[in-house]
Amino acid sequence: MRKYNQEKLVNSMNGALKLREQINEIIDPLFEQGISNICWLGIGGTYASGMQANIHMKEKTALETFYQNAAEYLVTGNKRITAKTLVVISSVTGNTQEMVDAVKRLNEVGATILGFMDDSKAKLAASLTYCISYPENEQLKFFMVGDRLMYLNGEFPDYEDFYQEMDAHFAEDIAQIGKQADDFAQEFAIKHHEDALHYFVGAGNQWGATYSYAMCYWEEQHWLRTRAIESAEFFHGMFEVVERDTPVTVYVGEDTQRALSVRVAKFLPEICGNYTIIDTKDYALPGFSEKYRGTLSPFVFHEINNRIDVHIEHLNRHPMDIRRYYRALDY
Amino acid sequence: MRKYNQEKLVNSMNGALKLREQINEIIDPLFEQGISNICWLGIGGTYASGMQANIHMKEKTALETFYQNAAEYLVTGNKRITAKTLVVISSVTGNTQEMVDAVKRLNEVGATILGFMDDSKAKLAASLTYCISYPENEQLKFFMVGDRLMYLNGEFPDYEDFYQEMDAHFAEDIAQIGKQADDFAQEFAIKHHEDALHYFVGAGNQWGATYSYAMCYWEEQHWLRTRAIESAEFFHGMFEVVERDTPVTVYVGEDTQRALSVRVAKFLPEICGNYTIIDTKDYALPGFSEKYRGTLSPFVFHEINNRIDVHIEHLNRHPMDIRRYYRALDY
Repeated sequence: MRKYNQEKLVNSMNGALKLREQINEIIDPLFEQGISNICWLGIGGTYASGMQANIHMKEKTALETFYQNAAEYLVTGNKRITAKTLVVISSVTGNTQEMVDAVKRLNEVGATILGFMDDSKAKLAASLTYCISYPENEQLKFFMVGDRLMYLNGEFPDYEDFYQEMDAHFAEDIAQIGKQADDFAQEFAIKHHEDALHYFVGAGNQWGATYSYAMCYWEEQHWLRTRAIESAEFFHGMFEVVERDTPVTVYVGEDTQRALSVRVAKFLPEICGNYTIIDTKDYALPGFSEKYRGTLSPFVFHEINNRIDVHIEHLNRHPMDIRRYYRALDY
Repeated sequence: MRKYNQEKLVNSMNGALKLREQINEIIDPLFEQGISNICWLGIGGTYASGMQANIHMKEKTALETFYQNAAEYLVTGNKRITAKTLVVISSVTGNTQEMVDAVKRLNEVGATILGFMDDSKAKLAASLTYCISYPENEQLKFFMVGDRLMYLNGEFPDYEDFYQEMDAHFAEDIAQIGKQADDFAQEFAIKHHEDALHYFVGAGNQWGATYSYAMCYWEEQHWLRTRAIESAEFFHGMFEVVERDTPVTVYVGEDTQRALSVRVAKFLPEICGNYTIIDTKDYALPGFSEKYRGTLSPFVFHEINNRIDVHIEHLNRHPMDIRRYYRALDY
């Protein structure tokens, strides 16, 4: 399999899961002291991860939780963010300008900032209330924060049981998805690596990932045009431009919004002959209770998307590290 | 001028402004009794209007305000919506299925529902706590609700002064924008009425309108493909697919997020030769104080977009009322 290192993948995920202890040591006393709300602040890919964490929490919680674009925070502000707010951020480099500036402003407000930095030497680390350094696995880190908060708020009684299954099976299961999906991913890549415009449809805890997969992977890294849309919104205007040959991919997960994506998947074949349905139900997650599969859906899709990327990158002979403009020009 | 009836336009807006008394009679006692938060609930175009009202309020308010997709509410729920929540909705027909179902659920929760119905005979009206019937002017209706709440919360001391200017000048000024923009709109339509894919960039109180103009007008009513993006997000992936001939339109308004759109407008010419910048600063709003222009930006853009639509509709000989699938097929 091209660019697939199972051991590295498994170790990366298991290492991320081990951060849970560190996360809880931060979250537990914070919750005890009392926080008024939770803000997921980011831009681009990290903004999208915030959308995912937010909707993941919305399924269960009565806590006030919202996501906030860093650049918009700098100009419009957000009066809901106060000294009693827990702001969660993530950054690969720690030097994205909007994030650096937003953190500065958050400190002026006195908010508590928990930051995940991929790079342990990130300069931004010194400006955070709490910093956890570990590469990748952004969604997992965010979900662990959200889950702990909901547990402490009495909204996730299965917390211990869920993480027992996570620690035992998550990394191996997700790595296996990569193997299982690779043939499909290659076929998909062969069919779509030259698409003039590809539509991605997703919902719930996969919406943020649908948004960022279309933007941060296809647009930014493959230079392929996309349009992402929420499943519920598909029927409210967008679908009028779908015709026989329009490439449309629908992510059908198993969270509370499954029904919204199933609706698209059922209707689409009537008007389109170039669709792809990716349904997490087609993928086994041995060792996991049925009731947790919805939470795992974005991780399943993430691994499938990774495999698609590997093949598109090769077919297009377009290394994903190339950027035309991003951090290459002044803007 | 094609399909332009100044008198009708002015009367429609002035009639909408007169709803303010009715709105305040509802909002004032509600606020007095105490509401915990404000939810803008919608789907498609009304979802987008909720985004606009929400960001309009965020500029000033410490009240908890958020927008909620009706379909997502039905499957995921939202525990922040309680008997103490004011939910604001709008509907043209009052029979959009997701809205009908969401209102039913809101009533079970005991939320207060203020609904604007275009059609005074809308069946949904009977299920609302308060119903105001008047056609069109959705953003204006929503802004009047948001402004009153902020006034009552002590966050909009200029409220009376602002609405004095609105009552005196708004309708005439916006109708004039239509006249002023018509030549530009025709040129724009001639240039772009056959675009394979058109990018729309917007921010702040124009983001919701950018999203819905791309989706509910170009996709749904002109059957032209689009991709809408928030100005701040443009630099975080999407812009890598912009090349010399890529059609990109940027809405530069005068609200707090102006700087984010100006940044796109300044950079774009370096990589793209097929761009259009629509800047509200190029349009006079006689009688209005400078400080209110930001709030008026979406109305200026709305009228410009209306003129573009009239010309695209004619050039493409595609009446905007035609739908292929929407309410034409079962889905």
